[in-house]
Amino acid sequence: MCPETPAHGPSSFALLSPTSRTVPSRARKRFRSDRADLLAFLDDALIGHLGAVVGDHPVVLPMAFGVDLDGPDEGGTIYMHASVAAGWRQGVDGQDVCFTVTELDGLVAARSRKKHSMNYRCAVIIGQARLVDDPDERHAGLTAIVEHMIPGRSATLRADSRKELAAVTVVAVPLREASLKIRAEGANDEPEDETPGTWAGVIPLRRVASAPLGNADIQVDPPEDIARRAVSLGWTPGD
Amino acid sequence: MCPETPAHGPSSFALLSPTSRTVPSRARKRFRSDRADLLAFLDDALIGHLGAVVGDHPVVLPMAFGVDLDGPDEGGTIYMHASVAAGWRQGVDGQDVCFTVTELDGLVAARSRKKHSMNYRCAVIIGQARLVDDPDERHAGLTAIVEHMIPGRSATLRADSRKELAAVTVVAVPLREASLKIRAEGANDEPEDETPGTWAGVIPLRRVASAPLGNADIQVDPPEDIARRAVSLGWTPGD
Repeated sequence: MCPETPAHGPSSFALLSPTSRTVPSRARKRFRSDRADLLAFLDDALIGHLGAVVGDHPVVLPMAFGVDLDGPDEGGTIYMHASVAAGWRQGVDGQDVCFTVTELDGLVAARSRKKHSMNYRCAVIIGQARLVDDPDERHAGLTAIVEHMIPGRSATLRADSRKELAAVTVVAVPLREASLKIRAEGANDEPEDETPGTWAGVIPLRRVASAPLGNADIQVDPPEDIARRAVSLGWTPGD
Repeated sequence: MCPETPAHGPSSFALLSPTSRTVPSRARKRFRSDRADLLAFLDDALIGHLGAVVGDHPVVLPMAFGVDLDGPDEGGTIYMHASVAAGWRQGVDGQDVCFTVTELDGLVAARSRKKHSMNYRCAVIIGQARLVDDPDERHAGLTAIVEHMIPGRSATLRADSRKELAAVTVVAVPLREASLKIRAEGANDEPEDETPGTWAGVIPLRRVASAPLGNADIQVDPPEDIARRAVSLGWTPGD
């Protein structure tokens, strides 16, 4: 059914992951080594999870994000934003963090408990986080996040005020050490379990948008950028 | 448009989170304090992200999971499974980890870059991870994971072999220190931005299943448990 991803030798990982921290320890056939695949996946994905060490324990939080290929880091910069009041932000400046972006593509039902799995695409990025000070870079980071969420929208918005650029936390992570793993196949049952009478396979999953809902004070139809984004996420206008 | 979640005082958090590590530092109105809400959300969600400190940096990886309310931990036990070859597993036994479960419910378009956001439900669980040694508890953990993925399926499967119970990593995390945050509202624009002529609002998102796909050797229709799960995730039989 679903195709296996191509196998790559360890040397191919150099394109994405220059250090041992993002070279996978196993299941290498599922890893992609092409940077274009990584960027296409990040473009397609909607949400990531930032992991940081806060005090004596790790914390993992969901984050909207954007990618700026013209940012200060060779290979691109990931941007996230947060409230200046967020408890975890103090500890991340200059620390190594892990930013993981996953899209779930299916539930995999096998003929044993152990072989149940999921189909997914997952990018793992490890790098030194930086709290962005420069107002221009904060603006660039917010723009990347908004454009990632809704392409074309940033150009329709008013300028950021000095006050709001002063009161936002923008976190930058270099897009340098990264791996991309894709599982897109059926159940990997043990050969002795492959009896045709017992079902094994995949329940495919995807994200679908429904009709955009305006804020209570909105008296106009969604603009072109919003409608286009909803359609690109599977909304059928009129539904 | 979307309702605000009810406000709770800090004392209410005791139901879910007995320590300061999972008491939120901000936006308390979005936090739920009812344990039943937490369990209902975990039941509804499909995937989590495990954050652990590995060597000198955090690692965040996507995980299928299950919840066993009759497990060894008061309040319940979260189970995940992994290959014994997974590079990160060695370091987590006895260490504090963070397990975060997020479902994305919408993209929030505001009238400024900074106020763009997402609607989501997110549970953050912090606890000491434990690699499960006992084969009976490994079986119980695998059963919880399979039942969470496809309710009713475990009873249709053959028994786990001693060999496979010996060759699987099952990770347990106590479901004790936890928080549940829900954002389910429109854009929180600045009052001066609320001009009716500029659109702000939400593109709602949901997961949808499509027709189950059998492995290449499968010659039978999906059984009742698989079809029911796909329908519960939005599949219309015949599509």
